[in-house]
Amino acid sequence: MSLNPNGYKLSEKTGKLTAFELLPTTVTAGPETREFLLKVIDVLLDFVKATNDRNEKVLDFHHPEDMKRLLDLDIPDRAVNLQQLIEDCATTLKYQVKTGHPHFFNQLSCGLDIISMAGEWLTATANTNMFTYEIAPVFILMENVVLSKMREIIGWQGGDSILAPGGSISNLYAFLAARHKMFPDYKEHGAAGLPGQLVMFTSDQCHYSIKSCASVCGLGTENCVMVPSDERGRMITTELERLIMQRKAKGHIPFFVNATAGTTVLGAFDNLNEIADICQKYNCWMHVDAAWGGGLLLSRRHRHPRFTGVERADSVTWNPHKLMGALLQCSTIHFKEDGLLISCNQMSAEYLFMTDKQYDISYDTGDKVIQCGRHNDIFKLWLQWRSKGTDGFERQQDRLMDLAQYQVRRIHEQSDRFHLIMEPECVNVSFWYIPKRLRGVPHDANKEKELGKICPIIKGRMMQKGSLMVGYQPDDRRPNFFRSIISSAAVTEADVDYMLDEIHRLGDDL
Amino acid sequence: MSLNPNGYKLSEKTGKLTAFELLPTTVTAGPETREFLLKVIDVLLDFVKATNDRNEKVLDFHHPEDMKRLLDLDIPDRAVNLQQLIEDCATTLKYQVKTGHPHFFNQLSCGLDIISMAGEWLTATANTNMFTYEIAPVFILMENVVLSKMREIIGWQGGDSILAPGGSISNLYAFLAARHKMFPDYKEHGAAGLPGQLVMFTSDQCHYSIKSCASVCGLGTENCVMVPSDERGRMITTELERLIMQRKAKGHIPFFVNATAGTTVLGAFDNLNEIADICQKYNCWMHVDAAWGGGLLLSRRHRHPRFTGVERADSVTWNPHKLMGALLQCSTIHFKEDGLLISCNQMSAEYLFMTDKQYDISYDTGDKVIQCGRHNDIFKLWLQWRSKGTDGFERQQDRLMDLAQYQVRRIHEQSDRFHLIMEPECVNVSFWYIPKRLRGVPHDANKEKELGKICPIIKGRMMQKGSLMVGYQPDDRRPNFFRSIISSAAVTEADVDYMLDEIHRLGDDL
Repeated sequence: MSLNPNGYKLSEKTGKLTAFELLPTTVTAGPETREFLLKVIDVLLDFVKATNDRNEKVLDFHHPEDMKRLLDLDIPDRAVNLQQLIEDCATTLKYQVKTGHPHFFNQLSCGLDIISMAGEWLTATANTNMFTYEIAPVFILMENVVLSKMREIIGWQGGDSILAPGGSISNLYAFLAARHKMFPDYKEHGAAGLPGQLVMFTSDQCHYSIKSCASVCGLGTENCVMVPSDERGRMITTELERLIMQRKAKGHIPFFVNATAGTTVLGAFDNLNEIADICQKYNCWMHVDAAWGGGLLLSRRHRHPRFTGVERADSVTWNPHKLMGALLQCSTIHFKEDGLLISCNQMSAEYLFMTDKQYDISYDTGDKVIQCGRHNDIFKLWLQWRSKGTDGFERQQDRLMDLAQYQVRRIHEQSDRFHLIMEPECVNVSFWYIPKRLRGVPHDANKEKELGKICPIIKGRMMQKGSLMVGYQPDDRRPNFFRSIISSAAVTEADVDYMLDEIHRLGDDL
Repeated sequence: MSLNPNGYKLSEKTGKLTAFELLPTTVTAGPETREFLLKVIDVLLDFVKATNDRNEKVLDFHHPEDMKRLLDLDIPDRAVNLQQLIEDCATTLKYQVKTGHPHFFNQLSCGLDIISMAGEWLTATANTNMFTYEIAPVFILMENVVLSKMREIIGWQGGDSILAPGGSISNLYAFLAARHKMFPDYKEHGAAGLPGQLVMFTSDQCHYSIKSCASVCGLGTENCVMVPSDERGRMITTELERLIMQRKAKGHIPFFVNATAGTTVLGAFDNLNEIADICQKYNCWMHVDAAWGGGLLLSRRHRHPRFTGVERADSVTWNPHKLMGALLQCSTIHFKEDGLLISCNQMSAEYLFMTDKQYDISYDTGDKVIQCGRHNDIFKLWLQWRSKGTDGFERQQDRLMDLAQYQVRRIHEQSDRFHLIMEPECVNVSFWYIPKRLRGVPHDANKEKELGKICPIIKGRMMQKGSLMVGYQPDDRRPNFFRSIISSAAVTEADVDYMLDEIHRLGDDL
């Protein structure tokens, strides 16, 4: 085992010190501080090595009650010493899931980009807040550069953007800006001042944060209309129009349509041009939730037809921490119109955003957001983008898509063992594993039910063994099925073969 | 200058590589990956050293347009090499404000806690999301331990908590839970289903995120009633009661009162027991925004009377990234009643929160929050708490308060040069600097106006010189004044003297 919690020894003298005997409280402790931090880095570098070692387990699973017995999580009254803190770090990583392991296909965010990680280390050390140029000058300018570039890639000139703590909050920003743009009095008067019930629309395959906006912001979830999707998971746009008309007939006010570019489970892309036409016709704000699929905007090969029409949207969510592999978290929200973020969200706190500062305060971003403090999520992305170049990022997106296509081919070639649910539009591959006893049995609803039952069992086995992580879930049309994700730059064709072979090893007897 | 961007040389061979020639895409590149990461650490350790060196500048200020010329922020089409990335890191830190420098008194979050920083490095390397036990087992258990401890310190048994991306979002969670508890139909039916206009109350000194809740969630800011505060910045509770009755008389529904424990500018503490009595009488949810003052809950010496009655609140926001010095960001929100977070926020996404998992899913937290992905903000706090112990944390809080009292004494001793605005309740010290020409002039409104005018000039000079960072702002009673913050463990009495002396050096001639 590579991470032996007892394998990282500080010098005896330093090991016995406590945090109070390091910088900053003990000013002479530069050397001991350095020794401690370098030892932490030893632990981290070993974890990076283990993450990239295919002979290492993906995880060392224990049930919560067992895990509590294995760990000393206690918060003591008295300080533990530095040697103990080093062991704490090593123990923590020993039992942590290696989300960057080439056999981790479990989440939309997989992988451990080395440059982005280095960027996040620096971000921690810089430890600043993003609300003003005054205390984050370089990072604020980096945000401007990177976000402008992303808007340019979307197909806009001008506009405005912000980084948010995750795609759900990005989607919330879009909702708030849309409401503010269409009903500027809402900020002051609230729902009471509206001419009628606001209604929003999204497909039944959308991310649940869209529905959450309706709950948080006073519409109520019954006024977030779920538009049916086709068998590929794409919004049925004729249904969208029918449902808009239905609500209008009730006197409601349709004002916001969410199109998903890369659904969470199936990786489906709604037809943006058709949705844009409908939004134009019914005067609705068009938001594109490309949190997941956004990375493909960088790919000339895959951008069309998936993103055709995206430039017609009013707002776009795009999470670099997903397909682009930036470290968690890194989510962006973009607006075609400049000025909305500030006019929607500003509360003009005089103590923070004074207008008599000695520099150009148009660089202060704090009054654009509903957070006050904002984590620095830009440096890791900026550095990573420099490290690949836009061309390199494009190649990486194309490579992930190639690997998903390879997986599809391999599933077809092993059609006795695997059942592909649909040809994917993204790197999500949805499939069933067919155990020995069900091979050759005609595929019908009863068989699907049986195939669904074995997913949690195979998942449980892979976690116990620690050999693989692949997700499963049911959807509205079918029972449990596997959905693998290839968003890690570590994955190769051999790893894809390993995934399928390992599922077969774990499930053949079921 | 300690951070010379050209001073960090990789070996010639490694320096010419690009990110694609490191792990994970080049599996044989373990040694080069290690060399690169260790060089980044060299840069970071030098920054830590410079941050703790009182002979170093706090910042190297340049106006935005000049800064753009000094930096190469471009995102190129082609990858830059590893040597360039190292220089990028060093250049970024060269121009970054040292928020951990002992002469940085500018924000509520100051300081660079070494252990918390090490924790954040590990968090980056672990790169996981906090929504399920499946992918963050150790971190989820840590959250349970730390958050339970914090609720215990508040004075509750049981209850529930979550970490949020900043105090503003924590306050939003409180608002949402309150509304859900009192109007459970709201989630589904929205504002339309309510018996009347909801109204919330807070003091006019509160953090602007409280008002933002009213704007975001459909009340409108006019239904966030600003209760006047006394000359010390504390809510006038008789006014609170009068305003509640006034709104009730209009047929409105008062439902939420925010008490601030540590206001942003003055550091004032509202009287919690008086507010709790009123909340009880009028059936309002009582929220305590202790984002800033929360750390003093740990201090037996300072907890009372500031927090007397806090256990009567329904929810409490408490940001360890402020007085406790955890790295940004680390904000917590606590609820007396268990079960509200999940019932309020869950959207039950089947693909993430399946009920047929092979482990106890009560540990999955993702469905409690309006975010989906959630950054791991617990490890840095857990490790830091272990490193100090609860006793050590208490000593640190007491020490910060002692230093603020020292500053007050020194201001009194130099009353020709400095005018203390009020005896502080927290580590915020509000004062004017009196330049030579105004010494001996009787203190009146005209003099205050003059004193206010020189704040931005002194601030501009300290930034240009890079010798000090102290904030200033106006409030509703007075023009600009300085507000220094001592929340960094690096600060000593000598640094406090330096602050006052340096302001004198910068402003004597004004």
